[in-house]
Amino acid sequence: SRNIRLAVIPGDGIGVEVVTEGLKVLDAVGGKVETTTYDLGAKRYNSTGEILPDAVLDELRGYDAILLGAIGDPSVPPGVLERDLLLKLRFELDHYVNLRPVKLFPGVETPLAESRPEDIDMIVVREGTESLYAGAGGVLRRGTPHEVATQESLNTAFGVERVVRYAFEQAQARPRRKLTLVHKTNVLTYAGDLWARTLDRVGLEYPGVQTDYCHVDAASMFFVSQPERFDVIVTDNLFGDIITDIGAAVAGGIGLAASGNINPDGTAPSMFEPVHGSAPDIAGQGKADPTATILSVAMLLNHLGLTRQAARVEQAVADDLLERQTNWTARTTHEIGDDITARVAG
Amino acid sequence: SRNIRLAVIPGDGIGVEVVTEGLKVLDAVGGKVETTTYDLGAKRYNSTGEILPDAVLDELRGYDAILLGAIGDPSVPPGVLERDLLLKLRFELDHYVNLRPVKLFPGVETPLAESRPEDIDMIVVREGTESLYAGAGGVLRRGTPHEVATQESLNTAFGVERVVRYAFEQAQARPRRKLTLVHKTNVLTYAGDLWARTLDRVGLEYPGVQTDYCHVDAASMFFVSQPERFDVIVTDNLFGDIITDIGAAVAGGIGLAASGNINPDGTAPSMFEPVHGSAPDIAGQGKADPTATILSVAMLLNHLGLTRQAARVEQAVADDLLERQTNWTARTTHEIGDDITARVAG
Ligand SMILES: CC(C)[C@H](C(=O)O)[C@@H](O)C(=O)O
Ligand SMILES: CC(C)[C@H](C(=O)O)[C@@H](O)C(=O)O
Repeated sequence: SRNIRLAVIPGDGIGVEVVTEGLKVLDAVGGKVETTTYDLGAKRYNSTGEILPDAVLDELRGYDAILLGAIGDPSVPPGVLERDLLLKLRFELDHYVNLRPVKLFPGVETPLAESRPEDIDMIVVREGTESLYAGAGGVLRRGTPHEVATQESLNTAFGVERVVRYAFEQAQARPRRKLTLVHKTNVLTYAGDLWARTLDRVGLEYPGVQTDYCHVDAASMFFVSQPERFDVIVTDNLFGDIITDIGAAVAGGIGLAASGNINPDGTAPSMFEPVHGSAPDIAGQGKADPTATILSVAMLLNHLGLTRQAARVEQAVADDLLERQTNWTARTTHEIGDDITARVAG
Repeated sequence: SRNIRLAVIPGDGIGVEVVTEGLKVLDAVGGKVETTTYDLGAKRYNSTGEILPDAVLDELRGYDAILLGAIGDPSVPPGVLERDLLLKLRFELDHYVNLRPVKLFPGVETPLAESRPEDIDMIVVREGTESLYAGAGGVLRRGTPHEVATQESLNTAFGVERVVRYAFEQAQARPRRKLTLVHKTNVLTYAGDLWARTLDRVGLEYPGVQTDYCHVDAASMFFVSQPERFDVIVTDNLFGDIITDIGAAVAGGIGLAASGNINPDGTAPSMFEPVHGSAPDIAGQGKADPTATILSVAMLLNHLGLTRQAARVEQAVADDLLERQTNWTARTTHEIGDDITARVAG
């Protein structure tokens, strides 16, 4: 079988550091992977003005998958790289599923006093290509007392159905078989109605999956007070952004939260990235935890069908996390990467 | 001085039960208050089809303040009463400040293992009359594979400036003098830009207030992992809805979360209500905690300038909450109301 071709976008800040460790683990697990690194991000933008040239985007389409570190730097106006690089990749490569597991590994400290690993084990299926992320909106009379600024959430039957269907498949494959729609149907009536009707309709094809609905405000509360309510969640792009950060907080912090931007149809490569950002304040100091990236590598392996390798990486991380509890020592980014690599290799 | 004229809308479900206790406390604290009860909510809608008749709305405008319990019942399609009663009141009475303290009282159990009362003490100033709550949007080809549903967020310089100014006043009056804007400027670029520029501009008039910015996803995480980051928060209607529910969760639960829908210009009465809903599942069973409503009554008293009475109610609640810790017994809605009333009267 031919090698897997992986495009790597380390990006900015700690992105570079954590990706190094992710690749180390990938190498150790022994899938035949061929990597090509792309220097996209603040440095390129500041020196050439380029963010994501069309030629680069076209090249990226040819890979089997993409591993991304993090994007963003104080030297670039906020939002520019996020929109024209990160979100552009998600939209252009039709990553309509943003898959974000929220899982408390044994041994990991959660800020929630009463929650145990069995209480926090869910998968958030966040829509990735619609809603308020479409970039639609405008401004009139900017900077005057009469300024009006709008943002438009665009939602389609096509876009909602495909992600809802994906979520049902996920739910069906898990022991609890429970799927919760998170939205705000009582205020976002048009979009909410589309989501709710789609859940009901597609649900007819999955009689074994129990469905539920929760407003985003209540869901945000339940993430803290009763996380065990949730198994698989399907939600809109913006709500998914918010609740997965609460999820990261309750599951041991942003240093552990992995994600995949998935194109389930395979018309373009999927992209895996830690949920955290570039954290310019701690960049270059070896302080970043590469675990989120390493777990994202496990998701990447899974996506490519290398399930055995994925399981080995996940197990190595689980063992490392358990070890941290009983035998905690401060480790640098490299050291954590080395330790997990050793477990994978051993 | 003439009596205070208070309109009371108990509403649905536990709304009726908690309002009874709120009024008991109000009576005991001895402000001269004259109440008129309005039967708005599911019962009226189901028997007459009326939600908020214009004549009733006009009458309500004549009161000094409104106390609301909760709205919503399974017998009414979701969203109908929320939009045409609750949100209509907020919009028509120009409640542009939705004031939601997030405060952990001593003795109250928080789900956060490490947080102490001094860590969780903030005020969220949620905008109440704009953004995605405007109800703008539409649907095309409903129910077909080509359906498109939109929601529009409408934001104005007028609307943003007045709530930002209010938030600066709140921040200036508190010891930490810190104001954090919560938004999603990297995605909602037009609206976010308006909010960010307004914060900067109005901030020039408040040199003593330190300002900060936090994306809503990060803020949601910090509510759990580092609530002590926040003093006063100003935010958009939708983000405020979400983060105040996280706030309620970390500050001891939705049974304690109070709110005021404020019209700071006094052109219409302000309206005070617990953050919780009508909870049809426990309605009529005496299980609801009336504390959120009683704290909302304290906010109401404060708003009317009865600061001494407000302080007495808050102190009575604080004492009751402390007592719960050392001397916990299951109490009904009435019993909690009676106990707090006795403290206020005593
Ligand atoms: C950086 C930002 C545009 C992005 C998002 O909002 O999706 C991030 O918060 C995330 O969750 O990956
Ligand atoms: C009932 C609903 C419309 C309302 C809102 O979204 O504002 C509620 O969640 C609240 O926070 O008061």
